Parts: sequence; C-alpha cells; structure tokens
Amino acid sequence: MSSTAILLLHCPDTQGIISEITRFITDNHGNIIDLDQYVDHIDNMFFMRLEWQLDGFLIAREKIADVIETLYAQRYQMTFDLYFSDEPPRMAIFVSKMSHCLYDLLARYRAGEWNVEIPCIVSNHEDLRFIAEQFDIPYYVWSINKDHSNKAEVEKAELELLREMRVSFIVLARYMQIISDELISAYPHNIINIHHSFLPAFIGAKPYHQAFERGVKIIGATSHYITADLDAGPIIEQDVVRITHRDTPESLVLKGRDLEKIVLSRAVTKHIERKILTYHNKTIIFN
Amino acid sequence: MSSTAILLLHCPDTQGIISEITRFITDNHGNIIDLDQYVDHIDNMFFMRLEWQLDGFLIAREKIADVIETLYAQRYQMTFDLYFSDEPPRMAIFVSKMSHCLYDLLARYRAGEWNVEIPCIVSNHEDLRFIAEQFDIPYYVWSINKDHSNKAEVEKAELELLREMRVSFIVLARYMQIISDELISAYPHNIINIHHSFLPAFIGAKPYHQAFERGVKIIGATSHYITADLDAGPIIEQDVVRITHRDTPESLVLKGRDLEKIVLSRAVTKHIERKILTYHNKTIIFN
Amino acid sequence: MSSTAILLLHCPDTQGIISEITRFITDNHGNIIDLDQYVDHIDNMFFMRLEWQLDGFLIAREKIADVIETLYAQRYQMTFDLYFSDEPPRMAIFVSKMSHCLYDLLARYRAGEWNVEIPCIVSNHEDLRFIAEQFDIPYYVWSINKDHSNKAEVEKAELELLREMRVSFIVLARYMQIISDELISAYPHNIINIHHSFLPAFIGAKPYHQAFERGVKIIGATSHYITADLDAGPIIEQDVVRITHRDTPESLVLKGRDLEKIVLSRAVTKHIERKILTYHNKTIIFN
Amino acid sequence: MSSTAILLLHCPDTQGIISEITRFITDNHGNIIDLDQYVDHIDNMFFMRLEWQLDGFLIAREKIADVIETLYAQRYQMTFDLYFSDEPPRMAIFVSKMSHCLYDLLARYRAGEWNVEIPCIVSNHEDLRFIAEQFDIPYYVWSINKDHSNKAEVEKAELELLREMRVSFIVLARYMQIISDELISAYPHNIINIHHSFLPAFIGAKPYHQAFERGVKIIGATSHYITADLDAGPIIEQDVVRITHRDTPESLVLKGRDLEKIVLSRAVTKHIERKILTYHNKTIIFN
Repeated sequence: MSSTAILLLHCPDTQGIISEITRFITDNHGNIIDLDQYVDHIDNMFFMRLEWQLDGFLIAREKIADVIETLYAQRYQMTFDLYFSDEPPRMAIFVSKMSHCLYDLLARYRAGEWNVEIPCIVSNHEDLRFIAEQFDIPYYVWSINKDHSNKAEVEKAELELLREMRVSFIVLARYMQIISDELISAYPHNIINIHHSFLPAFIGAKPYHQAFERGVKIIGATSHYITADLDAGPIIEQDVVRITHRDTPESLVLKGRDLEKIVLSRAVTKHIERKILTYHNKTIIFN
Repeated sequence: MSSTAILLLHCPDTQGIISEITRFITDNHGNIIDLDQYVDHIDNMFFMRLEWQLDGFLIAREKIADVIETLYAQRYQMTFDLYFSDEPPRMAIFVSKMSHCLYDLLARYRAGEWNVEIPCIVSNHEDLRFIAEQFDIPYYVWSINKDHSNKAEVEKAELELLREMRVSFIVLARYMQIISDELISAYPHNIINIHHSFLPAFIGAKPYHQAFERGVKIIGATSHYITADLDAGPIIEQDVVRITHRDTPESLVLKGRDLEKIVLSRAVTKHIERKILTYHNKTIIFN
Repeated sequence: MSSTAILLLHCPDTQGIISEITRFITDNHGNIIDLDQYVDHIDNMFFMRLEWQLDGFLIAREKIADVIETLYAQRYQMTFDLYFSDEPPRMAIFVSKMSHCLYDLLARYRAGEWNVEIPCIVSNHEDLRFIAEQFDIPYYVWSINKDHSNKAEVEKAELELLREMRVSFIVLARYMQIISDELISAYPHNIINIHHSFLPAFIGAKPYHQAFERGVKIIGATSHYITADLDAGPIIEQDVVRITHRDTPESLVLKGRDLEKIVLSRAVTKHIERKILTYHNKTIIFN
Repeated sequence: MSSTAILLLHCPDTQGIISEITRFITDNHGNIIDLDQYVDHIDNMFFMRLEWQLDGFLIAREKIADVIETLYAQRYQMTFDLYFSDEPPRMAIFVSKMSHCLYDLLARYRAGEWNVEIPCIVSNHEDLRFIAEQFDIPYYVWSINKDHSNKAEVEKAELELLREMRVSFIVLARYMQIISDELISAYPHNIINIHHSFLPAFIGAKPYHQAFERGVKIIGATSHYITADLDAGPIIEQDVVRITHRDTPESLVLKGRDLEKIVLSRAVTKHIERKILTYHNKTIIFN
C-alpha cells in the first residue's frame, strides 16, 4: 500500500471548508482514502481528519505543510498537524514494578499490530529489566530518592534520553511517579497515562481500595493525556467491568489489570493511528 | 431550529465526490450541519449522509431531488434518498400478545423522544387493545386462521390500511407471524423486526430455549430489516446480556425482554433519524 | 407453586452456622429451594439468603420468626428478616415530571413481571397524572413551595398516606426533591433512588452536564438506597453506556434515560425478590 | 494462608445434603471458607463447591476422598472431585503461529496471577519458539504433514510427553489443528479451546470472515472444553465487542485478538481455581 499523508485540523466552523480542502487534495491528484469530520455546534468549531495517498500527489511532501499554512491556516484560523504513514511515531514506555501493561504493549509491538517504534523503556526500578531484555529493548533506570531530592535531575536526564532517541510520545504503563510540568510541557498531549479508575471517580491513590470502600458494582480504567492537573487531562478511552460484593480489594486489583491493559492499548492504538484531536481538555476520537 | 434536508446516497467511489456535492450545497447557500461518509474499499463503494439547513437554500425543496438526479445521480451511478426533517415518517406497529416492546415504543413516542407519527397499531389478537386505548391510537385486529387460509386476505386488508394511513415504515414489536413477500416488497428495507437471539445464532423458533440447551454464557437480541429470507435480513443493531448456569428458559425470557426493548428502540431511532443505508444485505449506520 | 419463606440474615462468622440452619429447616420438613451465602473475610461476617417451601413445614408461619429468634438470633448475634412469597411488598412510586422510569415500572407491573402491589403514585406536580390514569393507579399531588416552607407539612401528609396504604418500600423514579431524614428513617433501606450518573462520579445536580464538561467516554446510572447522606447510600446496581465526542448534553440526557430505566428496574427486581442485604453502607446482592 | 481442600460434587437433589456435608466438615474441625451450591430444578440435580482449610482437619488428606466415597458418594449417587490448593494443576499450552494468546498466558504466569505450573509448550510449527525461550519454558515441535498422514504418530508422541510431564490440563491457544478423539478421551473436560466467534454462531473456519459477510454488529469469542463434537463442547466463557460497518475482515481479526485473550484467560482462571463443574454438555461456574 502506498504511503499516506494524514491531516488533523480544527478551526472555527464556516461554510465551505470541507469542500475547499477536499478540492485542494483532489485537484493536486491526491486520492482521499479517509475523511472524518465533526462540528461542535456549541463552540462552533470544525474538526477534520483527512488521509490521502501520496503516490502521484503533485505537491512534494516537505512542502505540503507550508502550502496548507499559506492557503488555509491563516484564512480560517486553523490549527493543524500533518503526519506521514511511513514515518512511524517513536514511543517510550515508562514503568515501575507492575508488568501487565508492559507485557501487553510489547507483545502487540512484537506481533506487528502497530506502526510504531519503541526505542527505549524508562523506569525508576530495576524490577522489569528482565522483560526489556526478553524483548531486546534498551532499559534505563534512574531511581528517585524517597524525598524526591533528585527528581529534577532525573527528569533532566530522561529528557535528554528522549531527545537523543527522538521519542515522539510517552506511555506511562503504571508508572508510579508524578510527571513534572517540565516534562509535560516538552510533550504536550503526547504523554498517555492509564489511571486505574473510572475517572473522575476515585482520583488519586489506591482507587481500587476506594471503590471497595464505596461499594460500587462496576470498576473502570481511564487512559488520558497527562496535563499539569493530576488525573484531569483529556480522556482518551475508558472501560469498565462488573464486580460484586464477593470482590475484595485484591480481586479488584486483578480484575483491574485486564481493564488497564485493554484501555491503555486502545488509547495507544488511536494515538499511533493519528486519530486523536485534543481541544478544550477533551478528545475528538476519529473512527 | 430550521428544517433540514437529509441526503443519503451511495455510488462507486471516485475522486472528488465529497468535494463536488458539498460545494453544490454550499454554493446554493445551504449550511451543512452534518456530514458522514464511508468508503467501502473492498467493493469500492462510496456512502454519504449529508444534512443541511433549508433556510435560505436557493433551490426549492420540491426541486432538490430533480436537480441532484440531473447533476449527479446519472454521472456517478448514484442511488440516493432525500428526506426533510419537517416531514416525519409514519410508523405502524405490529404486535401479537407480548406488551413489553409496545409499551416501550409508545412511552418514547408520548415523551416526544422521536420525530415520528404513529397512525395505527395492527395485531392478530385482541390482547393488547387496552394499551392502544391507553395511548389513544387506533388498533386494528385481523385474526389469522390456524391453517393460514385467510392470510393473503388479511395482508391485503392490512396493506390497504397502511396505504390509507400513509405509513412509511413498519415495526414488528414481537409480532409472531411470518410476513409475506408481498408485504415485504411493498416496504423494502422499511420493516424492522426484533429477533430474540444474537443472530445468526438460534435462527427460528424459541431461541431462548435453544440458548438454554446450548449452555451459552451470553444471550442477545437482533433488530434487522425483514427480507424474503427468514431472520437473514440486514442487521441494524444487536446487544447482549450475560447469563449464568442459574438461568432457566423462563429467566432468559425475562432478561431477553429488556434486551429486545432496547435493541428495537435503538434501531427505530436510527431509522427515524434517516441514519441507515442498506447495501448488499448489510447496513451502514451513520453516527 | 407452593408459597415460600425467605430468610435473610447476617451475623459474625462461626463454624457450623450453615449446617445448623439448614438442618433446622430440613428437620422441620422444609424443602430448601435456594441457598446463597457469603462470608466477608475482612469483617468476618456471615450472610445468607435461604428460601424454602412452606408446604408441609412443621412450624406455623406466624411462629417461624419467633423460633429463629429464640434458637439462633441471640446465640449467634444474628440480624434477620423473614418474608413470605405470598405476601408481596407494596411499592409507592414518587415522580416529578419525567415519564420514562414511571412508564417502564408500570409496564412491567402490568405485564406481571413482578410479585408486587402498587397502591399509589406520589408527586409534587400534576404532569404525570395522565399516566397514573392510563394505568388506573391513584395519583396524589402535594406541590412544594419554592422556598420549601411547606415541605415538612407535605412529608407529614405523605407519611400518613404511605401508612394508610401499608406501603413497604418507595421508589423514587426521577423524583426531583430531597427526601427528609424523617421520611428516610420511616423507611430505612426501603427507599430506592435512581441517580443519573456513575456514582461516586458526578454527585449532585446536572450530572450529564458535568459528564459532558469532563469529556468522559462512558456515562452511567446508579440505583441506591437513600440515606441521610446525599447520593452516598448503599449502591444496588449500576450500568454504563459508551458515548463519543459527538454527544451533546442533550443526547446524553436521552441515552441516560435508557440507562436509568434499566438500572432502576433491576434494583427494584432484586428488592422485590428479597435478594438484597445491606451492611456497612454496602449491599450484598444474592443471585 | 493455610492449604485448602476443594470438593466439587453433583448428585440428584435430596433434602439435607448441604446440611450433612457441611456438618461432616465442621465436625472434623474443617473451617469452611467458601461454599457455593446450585440446584438445577429442571433435572433435579444438586451441585456444590466446598472449600475448607486443611489446618487442624481431623482426616488425613490422603484419606478424605475415601471417606467421602464411603459415607456419601454411594448413598447419594454422588460424583465428586477433590483437589488441594497446594497441589497446583500442570498446564500444557498448544500453539500454532499466532502469538497473542500465548504472550497473554505467559505474562500472567510470570506475574504470579495463577496457582499453576507450565511444564511445556507444544506446537506444530517453529514460529513461536522464540517466545518459549523468552520465558524459559521447554518448546516441543511435531510438524504435521499436509495429508495428516503422521497425525496419529504425532499425537502418540504428544501424549507420551504430556504423561511424562504429568500435565493435568491442556490449553489450545489458537492451535490450528483438530484434536483427535484419543487425546480428548485422555483429558476429558481438561482441554480448553478458544474459538474466535460467539458460538454457536460461525462454527468452523474463518469466523471473522463469516461475521463480516453476515454484517453483524457485534463479534465474540468463546472458550469451551473440547469434546468429540467440533466447537460443540461445554462453553466456559464468552465475551463480545461492538463493531461497525467500517470494520473489515482484517480489523475484525485485530479486535478479535483482544477478545480471545481475555476470554481464554478467564476460562483458564476458573479452571485453575477448580470452579468449573461440567454436566450434560454445560458448565456450572462457581463464583
């Protein structure tokens, strides 16, 4: 299959945008293979994801962004991102001590489910190095002092590594550390976390214990982009599972693991496929 | 809110269709409020649902179909349907003896959930007349002989009623009779049935008993358009519910009722909203 | 089918309780048709639901509670309730202006799904009187002043009515008034509410709007017993439905209606079947 | 935690069985930590799972089965199995070329989710040897000729291996070969398969393609015990996921993988926990 260009954009809604953009692609011999659009009638905003084949497209790939900027972005107050399917994103995985999400991510990667590269795994503990070695992926450990006295220093080293590895987004696979604002602002809407509750219920620590205490009949997991506000970033995906009075905090942890794996991997899939647009602390998820 | 026009179309996929159609609407001062499209890359078919406001649209509503036919339909080998939001569909409900789906449909109707009119309820039994009377809707009964000797005659009378009442589609709300090909061909893809199994599992009679015998752990319900092929028409909506070894055929029937109601009502909602396109015995369901 | 006795009990866990209680029933010629038990190993509490046929049982029904009290309750520090299947509970429904839950409850009642009696519907508005009349159930209205100045008086009148009607439990079918502590304490763990969110997320007013604002991907509904603590009583049942960025607060309200109906009716079913035990602000729900 | 004994039994239902068995355990100083029972009122059969602590139990573990046989089994026409929690089952995994289920099983095993031992992985292809090596588990390959001419011989070798490894049950993790009756009868109700459809829909080959052709709106996966009847053995667990018209056979395969993993692992969990009783081609799954 030919390489494709993927355009994600949003701007205030006006008549004729779809028509104009699709005509632009078509006139330049681009074959549109996917178009998904959405109008937020409350904020009067227009959102679109457009994917077309590069084969035979009259504009050179390195010029496309420029042309869109010149022709449309300013006129329509448009914010846009442009990606190419043959330039896969580079994903770093951050872990602490729990293996389930890491195994799930790496098994998918190894099976070729995703168009992605994983140059490194980062941790604050040695515990999961053996998994990185099983999959032959470099594993970097910086332990963080209990008093967090070296946290700034550690994050600086991590940032350097991420840049060196040309990492484009980060997956926190049950990484049990707060991410600093500096790292967040280096990867805006590019750090995916999995929180083990149905947000906004049970924000913060030990959500399964909170769920047990409250006596809920369903537990959930939530994947979201990290923002400066703890557990309050744009939600990408959620799912739930039924529980009963027979469940203990321990069995909730076990059931939750399966949720966490699937919810995190669905979010990562959408991110890799460039199907997520964030706006006003929410996500638009294209099909 | 202003009245809208809704265009549902499909045709072989070629470059530029979206661009051309949306420009046509825009150039004639139609404000597009919803566009959903889908390309079937296996059959190379293009499907679109387009909704725009009629206020200020330059083409008179009675001319629109003509213009689309002339400008696009032939050129693109396009099949299309055009609807107007201020001309709600007229729905007939067929029932036998079970009340749950009928109550659910009428409660939604009375609460104003749907842009629809219900001119009549048709049955082969007197049992549910009291519900029709509760809701002040005409109730017509034609009983069908056990040997079906009068079936053709009954269906003829029913068809006459449907025409007189200008019925546009029929909902079989647990109507326990086979619909004849004649009635089906009078309402192609406009008769919605609810089958009480997860089709294609347990086709035919007593699906809950079949499910019990097989020992499945989940039961389902399926709403579909009726075609000449029993339980094999295009599926509109399905849903399931978990069961256990503790369930009996009787408890399955009870659990199934709730499924049937919700699955049927979701299908009816999509039909009323003109969000279903049928193609090759499948449905495209727009958002 | 013969009438049955249903025993719901809990007590500190000790060896031999099941054995002793079941022997007691068996020795007195009671045929046990259902036994479900559960041990909370954290609190070391034992919970049991036992149902047996009264036909041929050697102890007269009016003596059974006494005998259990004497033989077991004190010895085991046991709390228990005894019900008879031929003495159906009497349910009052409180409503305000929304019809969907009321229709759903009454349709089930009329279809004979439940072993229950509904002697009255209570409201603070006239709006739904027509439904009560459709189903021939007495409808009582006490409007509550905006400043709530007559609320105490109204609740007094309601309590009188409930007593006169020998109401055993109350269902708040989207009743938009806070229930006072006095009424709650007259019906402890016998007032079932439906809250239109996945508690404990979005406590309080306008949960669908809160859910929209937060950008969640799933919404829920929760049925629970009313306690003095707003939206914090023991949860009976919850369910959820997936939503997308395309949903508006209005479409959430519509999708939520279907959830509210099913979640409320499941809770009412369990309550009528005497399958709920409350303990420490949680529910044990037997199969 | 102390070791436990687990008793799974079924027999024709008579009064007093629960009482008698629990008294037997209690009288011999066994502390019952879990009891789950179920009466099939259609077949009049009684089913029970009983778990008690062996610490302080007066009967030596090697005598327990004998005593139960003598005291109860004959009298009540009882079929029973007895297990000890400190004698974990030994599980062989059979695979072909797809890695997702194998990774999921091994990741759970390595994370200590299960009380199980995995002495070997068996395959008809070399493809997944690298995973076995990642996890340090012996991997045995017998390739089967296209004409199946060596199949009997291969199964003989496999059976020998299974005996030598003292394998107690087999998991077919997308193993693409029909299991012969001989192997099935060596492991009755101890071979767990994952079928990639919602059985009994889409029995046989390429179920995702069948599902695509039929246009269903939900796909499923089913784990079941293998019997001589293809895809017709007792169902242990099923689950489903929603699909849309946008899905292709390829995307169904991808979505299905996640279902297969979770459905297979839930079945394996229940089997390891000795919570499954089979009867009349159905399973009773205890909580």
